[in-house]
Amino acid sequence: MSVKFEPQGDYEGRVRTSFARQQIMTSIGAELTRVNAGEVEIEMPYRAEYTQQHGFLHAGIISTALDSACGYAAYSVMPADAAVLTIEFKVNLLSPGRGERFLFRGSVTKPGRTIIVADGQAYAYDTEGNARLVATMTATIMVVSGRDGIEG
Amino acid sequence: MSVKFEPQGDYEGRVRTSFARQQIMTSIGAELTRVNAGEVEIEMPYRAEYTQQHGFLHAGIISTALDSACGYAAYSVMPADAAVLTIEFKVNLLSPGRGERFLFRGSVTKPGRTIIVADGQAYAYDTEGNARLVATMTATIMVVSGRDGIEG
Amino acid sequence: MSVKFEPQGDYEGRVRTSFARQQIMTSIGAELTRVNAGEVEIEMPYRAEYTQQHGFLHAGIISTALDSACGYAAYSVMPADAAVLTIEFKVNLLSPGRGERFLFRGSVTKPGRTIIVADGQAYAYDTEGNARLVATMTATIMVVSGRDGIEG
Amino acid sequence: MSVKFEPQGDYEGRVRTSFARQQIMTSIGAELTRVNAGEVEIEMPYRAEYTQQHGFLHAGIISTALDSACGYAAYSVMPADAAVLTIEFKVNLLSPGRGERFLFRGSVTKPGRTIIVADGQAYAYDTEGNARLVATMTATIMVVSGRDGIEG
Repeated sequence: MSVKFEPQGDYEGRVRTSFARQQIMTSIGAELTRVNAGEVEIEMPYRAEYTQQHGFLHAGIISTALDSACGYAAYSVMPADAAVLTIEFKVNLLSPGRGERFLFRGSVTKPGRTIIVADGQAYAYDTEGNARLVATMTATIMVVSGRDGIEG
Repeated sequence: MSVKFEPQGDYEGRVRTSFARQQIMTSIGAELTRVNAGEVEIEMPYRAEYTQQHGFLHAGIISTALDSACGYAAYSVMPADAAVLTIEFKVNLLSPGRGERFLFRGSVTKPGRTIIVADGQAYAYDTEGNARLVATMTATIMVVSGRDGIEG
Repeated sequence: MSVKFEPQGDYEGRVRTSFARQQIMTSIGAELTRVNAGEVEIEMPYRAEYTQQHGFLHAGIISTALDSACGYAAYSVMPADAAVLTIEFKVNLLSPGRGERFLFRGSVTKPGRTIIVADGQAYAYDTEGNARLVATMTATIMVVSGRDGIEG
Repeated sequence: MSVKFEPQGDYEGRVRTSFARQQIMTSIGAELTRVNAGEVEIEMPYRAEYTQQHGFLHAGIISTALDSACGYAAYSVMPADAAVLTIEFKVNLLSPGRGERFLFRGSVTKPGRTIIVADGQAYAYDTEGNARLVATMTATIMVVSGRDGIEG
């Protein structure tokens, strides 16, 4: 299931620039820890202020980071002048969002000129560093070209 | 498509108590503005700190509020001693998350003893108060009974 | 949730022509019973040859008819020279596919130049004519223009 | 992403018996070609009678075989007296259903006592035997126990 991609110029620079403009990533403490052509990883610590009623990380925050990971995985294989737009995603919540730290990986399953499909996995790490798969995402992403004022 | 439900005791009190324990709702400025049996509404203002790279509300925050709206719509028709658990959801992003204020409605499409399906709509309001449908969700929710220490 | 659409020329003729070319519709006994701008209905009888292990209509056949209903609802609001392509769909199976007859309705939730989102409902009718909601679909559909040899 | 499972008695016999009772599998010419604990493969030839308007295998038939592959992958890791019920699935259609032959693989991503999540891939083979990924599925499956008259 591993797909190889032609790097599109300075894809890493473009991904990092756009990620830095997502204010929400700063707000939730998320960092971009890996950028390959077609694969992106984001990490964040547990934060009580983003929890649901049982003290676990809210599914919506898991979705937030997975959506950014999948979106930037797709963006990394787009032409340099394109913008990225998530059309839809589905998230399966496999295990509670309990952990010290979280890693979110997005990777391109199917590239395309107009539509890109990416899949993501969210892992929770406990204090001993053991990982547990807590959620998966499938996201459908559109390559937006030639819309003035929309980039990144 | 309107389904009527038997009120389960003080469902409103239970929903409000559980919602108040979701720290993320306070963090993003979300309020519970309507609780009926099988239908819940949540509202929140636009906040720059939860935006994506184009300055729109991040799809993950839209999902956060929709998931809570759908989850509490399901919770409102569960037996009093049950806990609510979202198994999975799908979100379609129909329009950018641009607006002054947002309303998220979740309603039960199919009740059940173990599995409840709820659908949600997210609306953005501009400064004139005009609403625009920006996202829809379908969520599959589990009724969790008899697990010690898990409630709400 | 009712959206009004500008009729696009002879949309009904185009939908009926394309539907007639879907050999699977004939194979499963499905008929196009209603074509409005943005809303399409398909009906079919129960057939033992399309059942799963418990004798109910297989979820995949319910999906087949829902996908065609949603796809043609979208097609009915597309420009006359466009072709329709389903990108993805999600189906929730709410109740077993038990019945004498089935009705599948697809309607456009969000029109668009490139992407159209449609929602569908599947109903089972018993021998007394009582309807039961058995499944829902959300489908993301692409408007394909200017690809030689692809139409309908 | 490979998960190992404890074989549950004669899981292969149970999967084969239940598959043989799905009349639709015979109707569409599908065969069970591989049964491991947590992974099932189904194959079928192209058949014009199950095509959509462009002559490709209809997305609903791809979903039918993927749903059975995912469902039986889940069933293979269930206790011997349980029955399998698909709650919902999502399908992404990555490429047209054009080919001589199709292979559908379902594998368990997350086992569980009540809910099992499985993922599937559909491949089309051309006349030279080259495979192309045409669709992916994520399915949420319920373990049904103790309902009289429901098995398999």
